[in-house]
Amino acid sequence: MTITCPVPLEEKQIITLAHGSGGKQTHRLLEEVFLPAFKNEHLDLLHDGAFLDLPTSQIVFTTDSFVVQPLFFPGGDIGKLAVTGTANDLAMCGAKPRYLSAGFILEEGISIEELKRIVSSMEREAKLQSIEIVAGDTKVIERQTGKNLFINTSGIGTRMTNNPIGPLQIEEGDAILLSGDIGRHGIAVMAMRENFEFSTPLESDCAPLFPLVEALLKEAILVHAMRDLTRGGLATALVEMAESAQRNFLIEEEAISVSEGVESACEILGFDPHYVANEGRFIAFVSQDQAALALQILQKFPDGENARLIGRAESKSGRAQAIIKNPFGTKRPLYRLVGDQLPRIC
Amino acid sequence: MTITCPVPLEEKQIITLAHGSGGKQTHRLLEEVFLPAFKNEHLDLLHDGAFLDLPTSQIVFTTDSFVVQPLFFPGGDIGKLAVTGTANDLAMCGAKPRYLSAGFILEEGISIEELKRIVSSMEREAKLQSIEIVAGDTKVIERQTGKNLFINTSGIGTRMTNNPIGPLQIEEGDAILLSGDIGRHGIAVMAMRENFEFSTPLESDCAPLFPLVEALLKEAILVHAMRDLTRGGLATALVEMAESAQRNFLIEEEAISVSEGVESACEILGFDPHYVANEGRFIAFVSQDQAALALQILQKFPDGENARLIGRAESKSGRAQAIIKNPFGTKRPLYRLVGDQLPRIC
Repeated sequence: MTITCPVPLEEKQIITLAHGSGGKQTHRLLEEVFLPAFKNEHLDLLHDGAFLDLPTSQIVFTTDSFVVQPLFFPGGDIGKLAVTGTANDLAMCGAKPRYLSAGFILEEGISIEELKRIVSSMEREAKLQSIEIVAGDTKVIERQTGKNLFINTSGIGTRMTNNPIGPLQIEEGDAILLSGDIGRHGIAVMAMRENFEFSTPLESDCAPLFPLVEALLKEAILVHAMRDLTRGGLATALVEMAESAQRNFLIEEEAISVSEGVESACEILGFDPHYVANEGRFIAFVSQDQAALALQILQKFPDGENARLIGRAESKSGRAQAIIKNPFGTKRPLYRLVGDQLPRIC
Repeated sequence: MTITCPVPLEEKQIITLAHGSGGKQTHRLLEEVFLPAFKNEHLDLLHDGAFLDLPTSQIVFTTDSFVVQPLFFPGGDIGKLAVTGTANDLAMCGAKPRYLSAGFILEEGISIEELKRIVSSMEREAKLQSIEIVAGDTKVIERQTGKNLFINTSGIGTRMTNNPIGPLQIEEGDAILLSGDIGRHGIAVMAMRENFEFSTPLESDCAPLFPLVEALLKEAILVHAMRDLTRGGLATALVEMAESAQRNFLIEEEAISVSEGVESACEILGFDPHYVANEGRFIAFVSQDQAALALQILQKFPDGENARLIGRAESKSGRAQAIIKNPFGTKRPLYRLVGDQLPRIC
């Protein structure tokens, strides 16, 4: 008689609380999963921190946590999102993304195979974007759903320009450019979660924005402000920028590009695409006379081919707000998203 | 007839998924909880990243996530831990902690009052340690236990010395100093979790280590390497350092200070105090001739009054390992913690 193990050993490999102990199993996870993927001179030291020698003393620093469900979706996964999302925040400040930290919180029961796929997706994306992942940490929490995996990435970038970039730099008459069609990320994740099927498959727009920003700055476009459109979508970003800038924005609804797939999914689900999350789209504020050139530059990129001029900044009259005008000329103010139509979208 | 609300409005204030939407409720949380506590020129811009002007282009960067349960424990809370733990990692690299990011993952159901207490604890601790919290993010996950709140802090520090500090700098004959008695943090959290009572209350040792490191460096102590003792305790830190340095360490068990409370709790629970977590203790490697002066400097601090010389670094013979000698002269090698005796300790 032979005793057989009902589950092959490979499949048994799941995260346990011991992987978060700081002891032997944490060490093995580091040696077998994280170090092979993120290998670089900083991480190899197995030190408490990474010693970085930057080309400048002026840096940009940002942080973002990612809790998206499901972990894998059309066009990306939580690993690609964690690298790209934080790098995009740096790009929006006119900075070149250079270094990232990665803090993992794993739920007991997550398979090591899934973790490896996510880590290798982070590795691939960081390489593509010339970013080094130089500091890391792993914690493990007790099993609840067995599906939770959270990643925090914090990023350091170096400024590409000495010109200040931010809402306070927005001037009267500035053109508002939108880099592409909206709502793909939110709808792709939602469709995956709810097992929707589209006749033409819809992918997340998750993509690095730095190449587009770099091209604008290299062509001497004086970018006054930028904002990537994530949670809360285009509408929330416009409202926040209008309030921070203390200006009115006038937006032409017709100029906002929405793909057919996103449009019909939004209709069925009762969502407003202006509020659906994106992960590879941004708005840029440039002076009116540079708008045409800036659009040309953006449209050369596959992720910018649908870039459009969608409106302009005005001086404030009354409350600072973003106003959208429909094709019939009717105007209405945009508001921040109220409630949450799509939780855990990023 | 009057209709009365069974729960007073105040107590109804809990975190909901909408607080993670990026919309109106996220904005309120930011305005009412985070910004008042962390107010500074960088956060006030409500920008995607913080623009930092550092005094040097040589920096140290680190990250750590905190998942401790319960959130509040004798001697600290998750907020104090999140600021101090990451600042201590920077201090261990010989760097002055300057800037932190704070990424919150909140479970639906967490009370806003608790969140405010944690945030104000972070504010207090950051002020005490002259650290600015310059970037932040908040995500919300669905209710499971209603008790989970995770914080990632990433930190930027500037180097206090040009001398390299790290395991590779450890020399034969180096004195190994331990900054205080061990095991308080792990036992304090465990006691809180299990409702143990001690005749004399036991508090976590959670404390900033930078003041002690700064004093050593200012008095021209050439510190070769340092490591703070967190998860896995003193033993795991010694094993890791021995392997990284490719040296043998010889440790005198008698020289390791353990308080009476920790000792008896460990006996009852069957724990080895050498493996219990600390949050305000470290080991330092200095040349033998500077050991006495270094001890004097450490002992001037309340958090260093029990600092002791506990052993020395030797050349490697066979496998690099940390060997502990008991009072009877018997030697045994230390190993990394296997399994996890105290999950979610930090």
